[in-house]
Amino acid sequence: MTESTVQALAQRARQASYVLALTKRSDKDAALHAMADSLQSRATQILDANEADVKAQEDAGAPPALIDRLRLTADRVDSMAGGLRDLAALPDPVGEVVRGHTAPSGVELRQVRVPFGVVGIIYEGRPNVTADAAGICLKSGNAVLLRGSSSAIESNTAIVDAIRSALDEAGLPADAVQLVGGGREAVGELMRARGLVDVLIPRGGADLIKRVVTESTVPVIETGVGNCHVYVDADADLDVAERIVVNSKVQRPSVCNAAESLLVHEAVAADFLPRVVKALSAEGVTVHGDEGVRRACPDVVPATDDDFAAEYLSLDISAKTVGSLDEAVEHIRTFGSGHTEAIVTRSQESARRFTAAVDAAAVVVNASTRFTDGAEFGFGAEIGISTQKLHARGPMGLPEMTSTKYVVTGDGQVRS
Amino acid sequence: MTESTVQALAQRARQASYVLALTKRSDKDAALHAMADSLQSRATQILDANEADVKAQEDAGAPPALIDRLRLTADRVDSMAGGLRDLAALPDPVGEVVRGHTAPSGVELRQVRVPFGVVGIIYEGRPNVTADAAGICLKSGNAVLLRGSSSAIESNTAIVDAIRSALDEAGLPADAVQLVGGGREAVGELMRARGLVDVLIPRGGADLIKRVVTESTVPVIETGVGNCHVYVDADADLDVAERIVVNSKVQRPSVCNAAESLLVHEAVAADFLPRVVKALSAEGVTVHGDEGVRRACPDVVPATDDDFAAEYLSLDISAKTVGSLDEAVEHIRTFGSGHTEAIVTRSQESARRFTAAVDAAAVVVNASTRFTDGAEFGFGAEIGISTQKLHARGPMGLPEMTSTKYVVTGDGQVRS
Repeated sequence: MTESTVQALAQRARQASYVLALTKRSDKDAALHAMADSLQSRATQILDANEADVKAQEDAGAPPALIDRLRLTADRVDSMAGGLRDLAALPDPVGEVVRGHTAPSGVELRQVRVPFGVVGIIYEGRPNVTADAAGICLKSGNAVLLRGSSSAIESNTAIVDAIRSALDEAGLPADAVQLVGGGREAVGELMRARGLVDVLIPRGGADLIKRVVTESTVPVIETGVGNCHVYVDADADLDVAERIVVNSKVQRPSVCNAAESLLVHEAVAADFLPRVVKALSAEGVTVHGDEGVRRACPDVVPATDDDFAAEYLSLDISAKTVGSLDEAVEHIRTFGSGHTEAIVTRSQESARRFTAAVDAAAVVVNASTRFTDGAEFGFGAEIGISTQKLHARGPMGLPEMTSTKYVVTGDGQVRS
Repeated sequence: MTESTVQALAQRARQASYVLALTKRSDKDAALHAMADSLQSRATQILDANEADVKAQEDAGAPPALIDRLRLTADRVDSMAGGLRDLAALPDPVGEVVRGHTAPSGVELRQVRVPFGVVGIIYEGRPNVTADAAGICLKSGNAVLLRGSSSAIESNTAIVDAIRSALDEAGLPADAVQLVGGGREAVGELMRARGLVDVLIPRGGADLIKRVVTESTVPVIETGVGNCHVYVDADADLDVAERIVVNSKVQRPSVCNAAESLLVHEAVAADFLPRVVKALSAEGVTVHGDEGVRRACPDVVPATDDDFAAEYLSLDISAKTVGSLDEAVEHIRTFGSGHTEAIVTRSQESARRFTAAVDAAAVVVNASTRFTDGAEFGFGAEIGISTQKLHARGPMGLPEMTSTKYVVTGDGQVRS
């Protein structure tokens, strides 16, 4: 795709966005149902296309984890359709009055949620993200440019064709959902489409996100890199601590809200470390410990600063002893990615100080880091987990996919 | 200033931000009063420093408007101090619970306002912005790096000295407020301080803002470029329309919420244009009209597309007739800057359609464009008017100078 092609797509998206901004909820919900029906009625074509993608990757010797993420089944197609129907049932964020009052001059002020306009989403692997992202953008009134992995191009094309045909039948512009093809340079073109694309959301590994946040002239919402810590305080209930550390690490190690690092107060190190290392080892986890940890557990693998900086996304965890809560906070400031940081403590004072001092999207007291999640937060839909401080921080649901506008109504007021 | 110098300032600001994030309202308010007192007790030094800046600019042959913006008086120093005391009286945005609920798992969720951390502000001209910005950042718990115009360096240095000394006496870190000196390259260094500076706010002309939004790797909040339109609908009350057009243009032509363009529905062009052109001319305004305007008012200067794109900031206005409300919306989509767009109409349908279809920070019905303003909106303080869609849109008060964090509290919950 040449720059002018990406720009042409973006211009068509812009035109579609003008229509979507004026489309009422019932019409958007009807379109979401039509999209779901279309995915299911075209399941055979989608699965055939997916088979072609899978075969190409297998022939190219891609790793099994990639193949697994890529592969669709009839159940997965049904669950994509179910996701779209769930979106139809959620409240429309557009039109929500965020605040309002009558000013001293008598003009009436309302701050109202409006769509961004055109959203670009850059993602890897899973073709089901194509349907999810299209649905979330449509419900929030945004046109979307989808840039998936080239490994999923046939699957994504089939899914987007099904969606576009449903939009057309539902009387909404098909250009509300478009796929950005082409090579790696098309991503660069998307990042330079300032003025045509209102916001870019990269979903993927640290390298992709770093490239986008440094190169993009389009405003970016950074998502999903998590080097999450669990700090076990001097006042922790050690049974609770063990349960939370193990769950945070092993319940789903490949995701951004899994724990990557364990900090243990010296006062409980001798009691806690042997038992937690044993429990983690029983789940297949390798612990990488500093000197303090290795004093309590000599068999643990030695840790370096690279371990403390690592987002393993695997059955590994770094571990360190600290002399105080403040030292834990300092360590998190140095190595944390601002995603989710947890403390286990029975002390009200420690909980209060940790939640105030730690700067992250989510600070968790006495619960697993795995709770930082749109579904667990009750948002009903999630486009990603923002780790930046502007606009949205933490799990992003439908309201986070909107901007606002002030509507100011007077009866002839002028300023004096 | 070398890159390492700007980085060193940013690192000191970061340290100060950790303290500010934990400082309670009463201590911040006491510091604001101390800052106000310090400005007044050092008024002589500040005015002397300002006199040196003014003399240097006069010697260099700077235009009178620049000199006027630069010049401080005893009254202006008092009003800077008054602004700081007003800030002390405003509610603290930090700690506000934006939303919260208990999730099905039993974990309690609260989304709480927190400071950004370190804010960079790049601005021109007026030295009073130095005190305003320092006060707004302090009240919102942010450390600030202030990059003012080099023409105001002596004034800004004296003001920042007074503020830092007051912070020190009030027991808060002086590095919460720092001036970034050096040449033009220091701005580039500030823009590359990603990870050290959390958000950059350029306040100034279109060129400065364009440079920052394209070059900065630090997230940016774009402010203050306004190509604002007033659309006079077929159903307008023409007395009201005349009053609003004249006020929007002439009440303060040099600011971003002044009207720069007039759109008139053909149905009222023959009646309205001669009277509004006469009223504008009487105020010294030059009207630049298209063919349709010149049919009604042959003496008007012909307009080009450059006129419709211009943010004059002077006693000039472009004018055009349109065949419909939709044509007005289309023109605004092409030339508007997303700041403030007004309609004058008695038709409920026109008002509703215009406010829904026009995509801008503020859409005004039957009132002057000049109402898009933090003070008029009742915000009490304003750091600028955002024209971007991420994070903040429209006048930015104290809440817009914060991010949020989720505080998640459980009693041992893990995910299954």
